[in-house]
Amino acid sequence: MICDDLPVATFEPHDPDWAARVRTGVARQAFMTTLGAEIAALAPGAVDLQTGFAEGLTQQHGFFHAGVTTSLADSAAGYAALSLFAPGFGVLTSEFKMNLLNPARGRRLVARGRVIKPGRTLTVAASDVYGIDDDGEVHVATGLFTLIAMEGLGD
Amino acid sequence: MICDDLPVATFEPHDPDWAARVRTGVARQAFMTTLGAEIAALAPGAVDLQTGFAEGLTQQHGFFHAGVTTSLADSAAGYAALSLFAPGFGVLTSEFKMNLLNPARGRRLVARGRVIKPGRTLTVAASDVYGIDDDGEVHVATGLFTLIAMEGLGD
Amino acid sequence: MICDDLPVATFEPHDPDWAARVRTGVARQAFMTTLGAEIAALAPGAVDLQTGFAEGLTQQHGFFHAGVTTSLADSAAGYAALSLFAPGFGVLTSEFKMNLLNPARGRRLVARGRVIKPGRTLTVAASDVYGIDDDGEVHVATGLFTLIAMEGLGD
Amino acid sequence: MICDDLPVATFEPHDPDWAARVRTGVARQAFMTTLGAEIAALAPGAVDLQTGFAEGLTQQHGFFHAGVTTSLADSAAGYAALSLFAPGFGVLTSEFKMNLLNPARGRRLVARGRVIKPGRTLTVAASDVYGIDDDGEVHVATGLFTLIAMEGLGD
Repeated sequence: MICDDLPVATFEPHDPDWAARVRTGVARQAFMTTLGAEIAALAPGAVDLQTGFAEGLTQQHGFFHAGVTTSLADSAAGYAALSLFAPGFGVLTSEFKMNLLNPARGRRLVARGRVIKPGRTLTVAASDVYGIDDDGEVHVATGLFTLIAMEGLGD
Repeated sequence: MICDDLPVATFEPHDPDWAARVRTGVARQAFMTTLGAEIAALAPGAVDLQTGFAEGLTQQHGFFHAGVTTSLADSAAGYAALSLFAPGFGVLTSEFKMNLLNPARGRRLVARGRVIKPGRTLTVAASDVYGIDDDGEVHVATGLFTLIAMEGLGD
Repeated sequence: MICDDLPVATFEPHDPDWAARVRTGVARQAFMTTLGAEIAALAPGAVDLQTGFAEGLTQQHGFFHAGVTTSLADSAAGYAALSLFAPGFGVLTSEFKMNLLNPARGRRLVARGRVIKPGRTLTVAASDVYGIDDDGEVHVATGLFTLIAMEGLGD
Repeated sequence: MICDDLPVATFEPHDPDWAARVRTGVARQAFMTTLGAEIAALAPGAVDLQTGFAEGLTQQHGFFHAGVTTSLADSAAGYAALSLFAPGFGVLTSEFKMNLLNPARGRRLVARGRVIKPGRTLTVAASDVYGIDDDGEVHVATGLFTLIAMEGLGD
């Protein structure tokens, strides 16, 4: 028997102010403003970031640049991890890997960061990016991220 | 005996206009302009891209955002691969992996893309990113990239 | 709204003999025999491989070695990809990335390879590895794989 | 100007018994014995592991299985990291990425693990694998590894 249902972990946040910390964190990243990124949805261990199409975000064929896709995916994964951290811990990306699946076209780009395994020091998260148009969404990229919890690091 | 000397491959370009194609390609990526990126050096199979510090490129602690580091690394690897392609082939990134080694601080950020193994369809390249200040440079990130040569894809 | 339901793609095989080709392929990998690996389940785009615990597969703390975990994950991803190839195409792994999530303990180790995006040349697949004991299963590792379809390459 | 000379870091071990610890560690991995692996060279931050060709290590085309290549690369990177740890710390692999560059043929397979950035908690290392025959060596694979130092974890 093939079981394709991934168990959806339900995470308990360690900080009652987790949502405010995520919102403040995203707002403090100047580069997210440069990309026009904003929070589309959030839950403990899950953050969606989105941005609209803009000429300044494109590569040579007029699609979103892989760097934009990756920046959005990285921040979504990072804030998904941060949402589960104890108060006083900040987040840094240690490493990640992206597979680009389809041209990043669409009027909007959404990155969905999901914690796979939370940890005291290291958290592993996935981030999937979708290009969204009137006629639906296409899976643009999938990635795996390792995030570090750093005590005393402000977000 | 430990041998740490990596053999430096000398690559022969398949297109006499390889340098012009790389320059044109970088110029056509609007997102590279958004990042303020420019070519710092190029040779067959090797492209250095750099950008200067700007507030709009930072994360929450005032360093270059990992997305900037990665975008620069990706484009450096991609154009290093393109420099060895036959005329009429464009470049797409298939996948990549980045390890972030140190905070991306500095007045300039330089990504050094180097082809490890060229191929007719797939090319593997490394890209190392350095933060540069008056007192030297620090190794900010190292990554591995797989690039695809696509016939008829303009750059 | 956070949507955690991943769309489960239903894949159509291009070869009516896909299942026989996967079984033959696994049987021809001598290293799979060395690991004691066998097919636990298969469907178009999905292959589960498993092996039982053996002293010769361990690392220094008595758990399955990361190399065993990875070998199983790689073959599961590879045969999941092969199950969707047209007749006459063989499979090679181009690259992959693994995150090790928990110590690989258990009486059995199961790798579940799932195609994320099939392609004529490149296929992207995920592979998740679980350690299984009487009291349930633990998520040992998750990985992303790029597989190449090679015409004329026997499996 | 393109500078291809990578600075070769010279590492100072923190444990006068580093070499003995590496040798003991490799000897305790039963799976290394299964693979026939042995230490070919070692220095602080650098470990070479090798194994000879054997039928039981092959994939369907008679080359070394990617799982063998990866297992050797992983252990070489892990022991390269361990060689720089303080006494009392053991090593675990957190994650890694491999690019397979050429068929893994040869009478011997050698993995060269090299620390790129040592750290108190996380160490980043590269590992390159070569197939060696009478007529020279071929670059089979290149990878990046993140290793964790765990206090109280025996090796």
